[in-house]
Amino acid sequence: MSQYAAPLRDMQFILREVAGLEAICQLPGCEEATPDVAAAILDEAGKFAAGVLEPLAAVGDREGCRLDNGRVETAAGLKEAYARFQAAGWIGLSLPAAFGGQGLPKLLSTPVWEMWFSANMAFAMMPQLNVGASEALHAAASEELKAVYLPKLISGEWGGTMNLTEPQAGCDLAAVRTRAEPQADGTYRIFGQKIFISWGEHEWTPNILHLVLARLPDAPPGVKGISLFLVPKILVNADGSLGARNDLRCIALEHKLGIHASPTCTMSYGDAGGAVGYLVGAPNRGLETMFIMMNDARFAVGVQGAALGEAAYQKALAYARERRQGRDALTGESGVPIVRHPDVLRMLLAMRARIMAARALLYTAAGWFDRAAHDPDKRVAARCARYVDLLMPVAKGWSTEIGNEVCDCAIQVFGGMGFVEETGIARHFRDARIITIYEGTTGIQAHDLIGRKSQREGGATLKELLAEIRADAAQLAADAELAGLAQQLLCQYDDLQRSLAWLLDAGTEQAGEVLAGAVPFLHQLGLCCGGWQMGRAAQAARRLQGSGTEGADYLAGIVELARFYGSHLLPQAAAHGETVRTGGAAVAAFPVGAL
Amino acid sequence: MSQYAAPLRDMQFILREVAGLEAICQLPGCEEATPDVAAAILDEAGKFAAGVLEPLAAVGDREGCRLDNGRVETAAGLKEAYARFQAAGWIGLSLPAAFGGQGLPKLLSTPVWEMWFSANMAFAMMPQLNVGASEALHAAASEELKAVYLPKLISGEWGGTMNLTEPQAGCDLAAVRTRAEPQADGTYRIFGQKIFISWGEHEWTPNILHLVLARLPDAPPGVKGISLFLVPKILVNADGSLGARNDLRCIALEHKLGIHASPTCTMSYGDAGGAVGYLVGAPNRGLETMFIMMNDARFAVGVQGAALGEAAYQKALAYARERRQGRDALTGESGVPIVRHPDVLRMLLAMRARIMAARALLYTAAGWFDRAAHDPDKRVAARCARYVDLLMPVAKGWSTEIGNEVCDCAIQVFGGMGFVEETGIARHFRDARIITIYEGTTGIQAHDLIGRKSQREGGATLKELLAEIRADAAQLAADAELAGLAQQLLCQYDDLQRSLAWLLDAGTEQAGEVLAGAVPFLHQLGLCCGGWQMGRAAQAARRLQGSGTEGADYLAGIVELARFYGSHLLPQAAAHGETVRTGGAAVAAFPVGAL
Repeated sequence: MSQYAAPLRDMQFILREVAGLEAICQLPGCEEATPDVAAAILDEAGKFAAGVLEPLAAVGDREGCRLDNGRVETAAGLKEAYARFQAAGWIGLSLPAAFGGQGLPKLLSTPVWEMWFSANMAFAMMPQLNVGASEALHAAASEELKAVYLPKLISGEWGGTMNLTEPQAGCDLAAVRTRAEPQADGTYRIFGQKIFISWGEHEWTPNILHLVLARLPDAPPGVKGISLFLVPKILVNADGSLGARNDLRCIALEHKLGIHASPTCTMSYGDAGGAVGYLVGAPNRGLETMFIMMNDARFAVGVQGAALGEAAYQKALAYARERRQGRDALTGESGVPIVRHPDVLRMLLAMRARIMAARALLYTAAGWFDRAAHDPDKRVAARCARYVDLLMPVAKGWSTEIGNEVCDCAIQVFGGMGFVEETGIARHFRDARIITIYEGTTGIQAHDLIGRKSQREGGATLKELLAEIRADAAQLAADAELAGLAQQLLCQYDDLQRSLAWLLDAGTEQAGEVLAGAVPFLHQLGLCCGGWQMGRAAQAARRLQGSGTEGADYLAGIVELARFYGSHLLPQAAAHGETVRTGGAAVAAFPVGAL
Repeated sequence: MSQYAAPLRDMQFILREVAGLEAICQLPGCEEATPDVAAAILDEAGKFAAGVLEPLAAVGDREGCRLDNGRVETAAGLKEAYARFQAAGWIGLSLPAAFGGQGLPKLLSTPVWEMWFSANMAFAMMPQLNVGASEALHAAASEELKAVYLPKLISGEWGGTMNLTEPQAGCDLAAVRTRAEPQADGTYRIFGQKIFISWGEHEWTPNILHLVLARLPDAPPGVKGISLFLVPKILVNADGSLGARNDLRCIALEHKLGIHASPTCTMSYGDAGGAVGYLVGAPNRGLETMFIMMNDARFAVGVQGAALGEAAYQKALAYARERRQGRDALTGESGVPIVRHPDVLRMLLAMRARIMAARALLYTAAGWFDRAAHDPDKRVAARCARYVDLLMPVAKGWSTEIGNEVCDCAIQVFGGMGFVEETGIARHFRDARIITIYEGTTGIQAHDLIGRKSQREGGATLKELLAEIRADAAQLAADAELAGLAQQLLCQYDDLQRSLAWLLDAGTEQAGEVLAGAVPFLHQLGLCCGGWQMGRAAQAARRLQGSGTEGADYLAGIVELARFYGSHLLPQAAAHGETVRTGGAAVAAFPVGAL
């Protein structure tokens, strides 16, 4: 039996009442996504996630992958599950219809990906790479390359990867050394080694398309001299059939803390004369294109935060309802389910509040993506594009931190049983530990948030957003039931504004002090944005109360959950704010030798 | 090469300047522990930890243990290491000299145990059980039992275990079902199953002494009907030689997230007629005696928090100094060691500040143990006993939460390499996950802190402690360099006082609201106590500046670290306080069906 059920009610509530699904479905180009279609898709995805993917997660974790003479063998059943996943057309959900996708809004594909990640994250990483690679190729590749490769990626017939990291170049892409030598026929020969390549080799698909960052011979140093290449595992003949093996191979797999079912490969290019590659986009502009894939991946990793949290929460809740132990603090009754102990209930609420806040923020951001692409009102489209850009580091950085916190808390609910691998909760905890690291650590996200997203433009977009979320809180205050929460939110927004003012004032001259507060600032902003979304959810719940469209208990639960967020999570925002504004000096002044 | 070096400088600084080693060494009965003796012991322990225990930690993690027909096989090299450990007399360090121990102060044995846990936690759990079992037997067993068994436990010739948990009784000991039937010869026959028994079976020693909770036939229900029995694996003949195998065996091992080298056993007693057991202490009073062992274990687990944090911190620091990546934010220099990135430095400081605060609190508490036992001024002894009692849940609960946070942060410093098992940092992260659970979860510690330790006595001891830590902060304020920190501390103490007043006011009538704030209160108190200790450390460092007894950089580092604590960690205390005082209602009011 599956231990996961897609949280359709929560998803639908947020899609409809918080993220504005109905309005998004009416945007030009999104009309196929009617609410009915949306419901049917979520339903089907939920069945596939729970019925096919989740039952394979434990075995994938146990068996991991094996490398045998360049071939990667994955755990039993996964390849067959992928064949079904691929045949059902799940990969192309929100990819361009012109190349075989379904062109549905990102708002709709986001909960679907959440389900895949909840059910089997190591598995879902593979097709997610196809999505990112498709978006990058669609944005930058020549029509010839697109015609040959894009339909295969979007259908999932072939796999895709992203090759950035090298042993000496982790997050610092300026240090990339992989070389690309131009050939007379317009192709390139690629030479170099890439590490940490997720799904770099496998037998699920007959071909794998590697997107590889490399340097041309005349490239300028640093990040402005990096180009992007499409390097297929198997070369494709003129007629579209598969030809010779390209000169690339997987030479090692990592032995990891989590996501065991996902092969993390060291890839070697060009050991026998050079791997054939095709330039994607303009020379030396590879990073811009890779950032399309990277941004897609960052958002997806943010979704993994909510997804792993949800999976862990469901298990913890089921355990807390079933496990009987101890005495009810109020009634004195003994042998009660542990969910009745206030501290266990507090933990479950802390998990649920975090997940709902992150989910609401992620879905709202997905809606911004769609509006940025489709809204006929150019000002709205531009504003949504600004918001997406501003909050991407929060969507990724904050949601993944939350995912870790929730998985950690789930183990605590299980007590000693949480430490025993067979209960399965430790797997989520282990899997989750990568998400604050890959696709840019929380520190890198925070750096981006402070520098490019705030200081560079004098905080303009963040001020714009703050005005909007303040207005929402003012609305909330009009409802006596939510006035307390509104007060807490407004108080925290003031504090956030103080932090922003401090950052802008400190500027680049106090870079050491400012950057020492980057992660605390990301947390402060994340907690405030989460509170904003919880406030919107509570407002929607209040609006629906008595309308008969949703259960009374469910709606009361949303309102109480928002209150819980206000008193249990939100207060931490101001603590981070104090650190932002007063904590830089102690870091900048520290005598490093005394560490 | 060992990846761990005992942090002798930090340990000595805290022992001498914060925990008052010199004064403790002058207490009657502690005179053998001169500062020179202490230094020599710490030195030797550091060598053994780094030279013998740490090199076996990775292999122990990889190999785990195997159960083969009732026999438990541990990883290569561990048994031999134990033989050396035992022969060196490390177990008896602070155990009674009358039974072969060295009778040294707990203040001195605490850093030594910290080293063992840092170097190889799974290993060190085994001899630590001997310490707890010895203290329980010493306190409650008959002279006959003590004469036969205590010297063997204290020397480590035989092992010891604690058997509390049963499948239906995790932390709820009222549900214990194991039976003890009295025999004509004054012994008992024990029948039942115990789970999660650390080191319940192994071949390191020729005998293992199990301390087992069980019920006599006429026992009242609940916790007042539990007796404690000594149940040896091998029966001991009248002449002290080993006799027949007792009727008990290990029937299963857990497959765990961490501490793989430590066998976690399911023990079955009495499958073939009953295991012979000896009553320890009075009938039905077993829990009191077991709590002696439990309290010792709780303190030791608190020490594990600092110890695992230290081990992880050392690895992270070494990596951050060695790994070159990215550009210096201030100078623009590229390829710099990542320790120069402000966010990485922030993480390392956050780790170090947490470890030092927890260590200072733990060592100070160890000193209270010694004063409670030895101080000729009975009022001082009584006050120290009260403080130990009050803060045990913080020493255990808060230090272990910190241990987890630090190990988590260490992975973040490593980035992608932290997720790769070979770097070894993930092992600490996995091992640490049990410490907030075993010997009573953080929730149980917090429950104890609120109920027995605060509400029951009207907060008397906590108020007494608060007056003392306020007075210390007032002293701090007299030093212009530390006045800012003093101000932050006093402000947080005010907030703590508000929380305590709220808890006392709410009383038992609002048990649901109060208990929902129990863990936040534990965090608030822990952060304040940590701040208190960091303030004391900073004051000591200021006192020593210019005295020539300690390096200028080191002392400046202590002062800056205390400031860092004040601006990066301490602000969270008030956030927890707000939750304590305002967050209970949302938990108590939550419609559980809406989870």
